[in-house]
Amino acid sequence: MNMYELILKKREGERLTKEEIYWLVNGYTRGDIPDYQMAAFFMAVYFRGMDQSETVWLTLAMAESGEKLDLSEIQGIKVDKHSTGGVGDKTSLIIGPMLAALGIPVAKMSGRGLGHTGGTIDKLESIEGFQTALTREQFIGNVNRIKLAIAGQTANLAPADKKMYALRDVTATVDQDALIAASIMSKKLASGADVIVLDVKTGSGAFMQTQERAEQLAKLMVDIGWQAGKKTSAILTDMNEPLGHMVGNALEVQEAIEVLQGKGDERLLEVVFALASYMVLGAGRAETLEEAEQILKETIETHKALDKFAEFVQAQQGNPDWIYHPERFPKARLKIPVYPTGNGYLKSCDTREVGMVSLILGGGRKTKDAKIDSTVGIQLCKHLGDAVTTKEPFAYLYANHEEQAKEAEKRLQNAYTISEIPTEKQPVIKKIVVNE
Amino acid sequence: MNMYELILKKREGERLTKEEIYWLVNGYTRGDIPDYQMAAFFMAVYFRGMDQSETVWLTLAMAESGEKLDLSEIQGIKVDKHSTGGVGDKTSLIIGPMLAALGIPVAKMSGRGLGHTGGTIDKLESIEGFQTALTREQFIGNVNRIKLAIAGQTANLAPADKKMYALRDVTATVDQDALIAASIMSKKLASGADVIVLDVKTGSGAFMQTQERAEQLAKLMVDIGWQAGKKTSAILTDMNEPLGHMVGNALEVQEAIEVLQGKGDERLLEVVFALASYMVLGAGRAETLEEAEQILKETIETHKALDKFAEFVQAQQGNPDWIYHPERFPKARLKIPVYPTGNGYLKSCDTREVGMVSLILGGGRKTKDAKIDSTVGIQLCKHLGDAVTTKEPFAYLYANHEEQAKEAEKRLQNAYTISEIPTEKQPVIKKIVVNE
Repeated sequence: MNMYELILKKREGERLTKEEIYWLVNGYTRGDIPDYQMAAFFMAVYFRGMDQSETVWLTLAMAESGEKLDLSEIQGIKVDKHSTGGVGDKTSLIIGPMLAALGIPVAKMSGRGLGHTGGTIDKLESIEGFQTALTREQFIGNVNRIKLAIAGQTANLAPADKKMYALRDVTATVDQDALIAASIMSKKLASGADVIVLDVKTGSGAFMQTQERAEQLAKLMVDIGWQAGKKTSAILTDMNEPLGHMVGNALEVQEAIEVLQGKGDERLLEVVFALASYMVLGAGRAETLEEAEQILKETIETHKALDKFAEFVQAQQGNPDWIYHPERFPKARLKIPVYPTGNGYLKSCDTREVGMVSLILGGGRKTKDAKIDSTVGIQLCKHLGDAVTTKEPFAYLYANHEEQAKEAEKRLQNAYTISEIPTEKQPVIKKIVVNE
Repeated sequence: MNMYELILKKREGERLTKEEIYWLVNGYTRGDIPDYQMAAFFMAVYFRGMDQSETVWLTLAMAESGEKLDLSEIQGIKVDKHSTGGVGDKTSLIIGPMLAALGIPVAKMSGRGLGHTGGTIDKLESIEGFQTALTREQFIGNVNRIKLAIAGQTANLAPADKKMYALRDVTATVDQDALIAASIMSKKLASGADVIVLDVKTGSGAFMQTQERAEQLAKLMVDIGWQAGKKTSAILTDMNEPLGHMVGNALEVQEAIEVLQGKGDERLLEVVFALASYMVLGAGRAETLEEAEQILKETIETHKALDKFAEFVQAQQGNPDWIYHPERFPKARLKIPVYPTGNGYLKSCDTREVGMVSLILGGGRKTKDAKIDSTVGIQLCKHLGDAVTTKEPFAYLYANHEEQAKEAEKRLQNAYTISEIPTEKQPVIKKIVVNE
């Protein structure tokens, strides 16, 4: 086998065999295949695509390219969720404790934020003392003991994905469904869960801006999951505005605590219950979605989920008092009201831009190694479709530097358009994709 | 400007600007743009193409990427020809002396053979003492003195092409018209001639196997040439069988001498006169093609072209006696008759395979640094359409090793198909492409 022939084959629109795809992934991971050949291959894939079998093989080859997390020492059916990345998405912080409170083991590897989207790891680290670097033993031990652990991704899970993604990122070959699906699913498969629920975002803050493409991607990933022997489902959720009221690291943890206290934003709750219900179903702890939702609600009403969050924080060296007393989170120095540019109804939101506003306040990373300021962020008081007037702030900025705040204020205002006539509210759950 | 944006732009089918193309070519040549980005770009070009303006800018940027041969010290209108590569193509060895005999300066940079095609430089080096490594002063001086010099390509003519071609060669991105045209024409433009005549081969031994693609490429190159201010024309010639009777380095020089002695193969003569006539026209030495052909014929009848060949050989340290006494060329040890596999008419020839037969006899290079055996090769006694019988050889092999000869014999036999019914002869000149 040689790489030239495989590039040519894909360029001509032919289908690669399983053996060819494994050879290619392993060769590239080992460094035998040079970047320039892989780059040409990816561009050929961009134009020619990969069929479902090719995509499954690619995913499996990538998942098997390094260590696989062996969760066999964890008792019970392990569940995991994955979001394709959004703004204000703190669902993992809420769902983890709820499921763990039900005794369902959640062993989650999570990422840091980059660009306009936040990362669960960054959010958790805003809690005093919280550690995300766990040894394998700590990770497995915590899940067995308290049913929940969330750790930063270890270096050697699906190393093929890491290397391939870095190359695609600089060669304009990220935006291809088979490659996106394989990238996401290879990491999930290597992470060892039995049940995978995918939150595929669609809209102005999502990678997939149209619902059609998001649905295609969701279907492809669900297929891959089942073909790899994992109970997989996907929920298409709206990212035409941030999820919930808060955007920013400590601010989002505080919003998650609110939800676990029984308060919280409607749209956020809808997404939380939809994702969590499918995880409960997958774990075999309920027969119907209604039943699943019922027992999940009880974890909130009984404060069991909140207690579990505190227990989880403590197990990872964080200060559990902060969970019961969120007023202890350090505050940003400035709280600045932001007024809409006109009277009317919030019509559209450039959600990616809202994420960028958080980033320029210091809440995100411009480069991989940048430090983040966990106190800053945005509080959104209005949803799309809500009436606004120039007399009342529609948002607040939490900032530590006047200069940054000034730029942020302008950009946040411009991220929204306002209509004089009322606009219809859009549902936050767009579609459920399950295996047929 | 950044390379990512340019890859994306081309991927989306947009047209690059002149500034972008120059930036890209210069950045890549300098090493600022990495191979992997260039590889992705080439694959995007493969799928999206380049329009005529983009192709012209690409060619000019490549031509200007290194030194340009300054031929301004040479008096008169400098003419050059380029062939896209064929088997048995010794036209440069014949046309150079004819034009020089007419006082038209020919300053030719030529290449070595690689793969199934031979190179003019390799052929000339079969003459005792012949030197192809000339200094700039020798090169210019010889052209001014005797009107003809043929030298090996110096390292720094169109270095962008050299680097880009090497990358395309390993990323399955060679086969794209705009890139092929830019590669050929950038070298020609950098070589400094005023008049360029292109011999675009089509058929089983050519890079462009169909006449349609060959014609497209020819038109594109002619356009580029004129836009760069060069009088350019192209002749589509048949490469469905080797050109002339001889394939092999010293054998082809001997065939060229025969032609200059007034003998020689009809089809070979047709191509020689067609190419040379357009060069004479371009140099302004004739008003019509008929007139051009007439004065060219006189260079043969008067033996002026043969004398010029000898003079040229001597000027480059070769032994001119060999030109007048071609029997002095060393002979291969074996001369082996090859019989057709059946009775009938030669119907088709896998010309590339005939080139490969010469290569396995030792007459070509399998790798860039391999040594070649100038004595070996093939003599073809029959053309396509000719009647053959199993009692009469249709070819002879000149070989130095029995083992190689045995394989060569079998492969040469199989390179031809034989028909029981007579087949029509095809013209060797397929089309003339001039600027409209």
